[in-house]
Amino acid sequence: MSRKIHNFSAGPAVLPPEVLEKAAAAVREFDGMGLSLLEISHRSKNFERVMEEARALALSLAGLDDRYDALFLQGGASLQFHQVPLNLLRPEGKAGYVITGEWATRAHREASILGNTVVVASSEEGRFSYIPKNYPIPEDLDYLHLTSNNTIYGTQYHSFPEAPVPLVCDMSSDIFSRPVDFSRFALVYAGAQKNIGPAGVTLVILRKDIVGRSGRRLPVILDYATHIKHGSMYNTPSVFAVYVTKLTLEWIRDNGGLAGMERRNREKQQLFYSTLDQCTIFEGTARPEDRSWMNATFVLRRPELQEEFENLLKEGGISQLKGHRSVGGYRASMYNALPIESVKALTDIMLYLNSKYA
Amino acid sequence: MSRKIHNFSAGPAVLPPEVLEKAAAAVREFDGMGLSLLEISHRSKNFERVMEEARALALSLAGLDDRYDALFLQGGASLQFHQVPLNLLRPEGKAGYVITGEWATRAHREASILGNTVVVASSEEGRFSYIPKNYPIPEDLDYLHLTSNNTIYGTQYHSFPEAPVPLVCDMSSDIFSRPVDFSRFALVYAGAQKNIGPAGVTLVILRKDIVGRSGRRLPVILDYATHIKHGSMYNTPSVFAVYVTKLTLEWIRDNGGLAGMERRNREKQQLFYSTLDQCTIFEGTARPEDRSWMNATFVLRRPELQEEFENLLKEGGISQLKGHRSVGGYRASMYNALPIESVKALTDIMLYLNSKYA
Repeated sequence: MSRKIHNFSAGPAVLPPEVLEKAAAAVREFDGMGLSLLEISHRSKNFERVMEEARALALSLAGLDDRYDALFLQGGASLQFHQVPLNLLRPEGKAGYVITGEWATRAHREASILGNTVVVASSEEGRFSYIPKNYPIPEDLDYLHLTSNNTIYGTQYHSFPEAPVPLVCDMSSDIFSRPVDFSRFALVYAGAQKNIGPAGVTLVILRKDIVGRSGRRLPVILDYATHIKHGSMYNTPSVFAVYVTKLTLEWIRDNGGLAGMERRNREKQQLFYSTLDQCTIFEGTARPEDRSWMNATFVLRRPELQEEFENLLKEGGISQLKGHRSVGGYRASMYNALPIESVKALTDIMLYLNSKYA
Repeated sequence: MSRKIHNFSAGPAVLPPEVLEKAAAAVREFDGMGLSLLEISHRSKNFERVMEEARALALSLAGLDDRYDALFLQGGASLQFHQVPLNLLRPEGKAGYVITGEWATRAHREASILGNTVVVASSEEGRFSYIPKNYPIPEDLDYLHLTSNNTIYGTQYHSFPEAPVPLVCDMSSDIFSRPVDFSRFALVYAGAQKNIGPAGVTLVILRKDIVGRSGRRLPVILDYATHIKHGSMYNTPSVFAVYVTKLTLEWIRDNGGLAGMERRNREKQQLFYSTLDQCTIFEGTARPEDRSWMNATFVLRRPELQEEFENLLKEGGISQLKGHRSVGGYRASMYNALPIESVKALTDIMLYLNSKYA
């Protein structure tokens, strides 16, 4: 392909070109073994090293010490929606959820199936266009669950609440996109396929002392203790996805770490949102102070321009800008690996169309 | 690499070279999209087609009609050990397990955590060196669980029992290696990483009428009904692993289907076991009538030859022949994609060493 594609996919999403090159090479031959990465034992020294390095790198990027562990599990955030309460919610206890969109709603639903939950705050009445703030947090919760970034509605926490209970956070769509004080969380999880890798692996970072908190008799495979004990190798891990995630974490480390990602992402969101705000034919859907740096959601105020706008996008190689099927409109996903050139390509089109019709 | 490696890995295991070539190419660019397979939305038409084709192909190879469905889930057989009883074992019901090795034991353990189980037969007292036969099967079981092939102990069912209850089978290590009457099973599952793909995806084939049998209130993500309803796309699937599995299923189809695989595998096991039986310095560990075509386990009767044997293996490019860490000895895993030339390379070494010392 000679034409440059600007990949605004909401996830699975753009990965660094050098990561993709190394990943393709590893499918051909891995680590000088004469074999593909896809056909070696996960118990080979070569892969055991990959897993160890990936876990260490995740903890190091998060700035955490050995009171924490990093696991690479399967099943996506959707399985964590169940696994978190199974491990942390006592049968007679209560879990708190802040509802900021579809994923928070799903997380809450799974917890409700297992036990008692309370919605501590919600922005549903405002169509999830903002992040609730300054709500009281009950002190008797087993944990409080947040969703740091909302891909569908384009909102993001820019600061996290102080909580008198263990904090759990689904960071699937903004993990490692900026420095965060991870030590404030008891458990953080993230499907890799937005900022740190391909689909098929879930990063779980947890403080080891929370293991066993629910007191339930747990299935071995869903007990975090099992995976801590076996170094995330209790059963066959998602070998290729773990490797590509390790490559992506290395790319983050080598590009300034989380501070480097923040600089990169700040520049992109500034360019995008400042353009959006000066184009009167477009309108953002999230409250400005809660706008997501990862997923900018917006609509065309003049529906008659839709065809022309979408033709321009197509000609400009702007890919996957459609909003989520549940809300429509547009969504510019600008994860770590998206270069600013791609945002520039998009904003140039927005400015052109605006100057023509505004 | 110029030197040919003979890949006897027990899993993740050897894949066809043409599958690996296509997989590597898709990591560079997929389907003429100008993007890597790792960075496209699973909701793109291109990937939706992959998933649909993979599901249809799995059903077609199994010779099943639309009373059945094929799902590509995450979490490996180890998650199915829990998910099967969760979906099929009533709180007041009872599940039967036949214990033929480590994986059957783990499956049984997970079921016991959820409800009542009964060990219908076991070969544990014989160190799992055979497949139990001719045992009575209680008629009041919610299901009977079998493990068709035992990678660690090298045994395999060459015929399945008639059962008056729904049959469930973990076929992780021999699925699609031979024709099987799949319509005799209510549910079959298999981690892909032995015969049909890379690690990171689990094939579940189930008769749709068994959904909801347990009557339990299920987590949404672990309810088979969820995945049937959403065409195995309820949450982000393991995109790359599903694609490579689809390529491998196509390779099976294009190489004679399951009958073709049986011919291929019959030839390999005949060569291997006939060699084993004529080499007095080696000894098989499984009862001859129950020997696995997938994993041949054996020991050296003369331990003083170990170093020489292992040097010969190394020189000959014979890779990953070590027995499972729990039992030691040797294990020749001969999954679908292993060429007969690799078996020949191994048996030549065995014959040479035997002729020197026997």
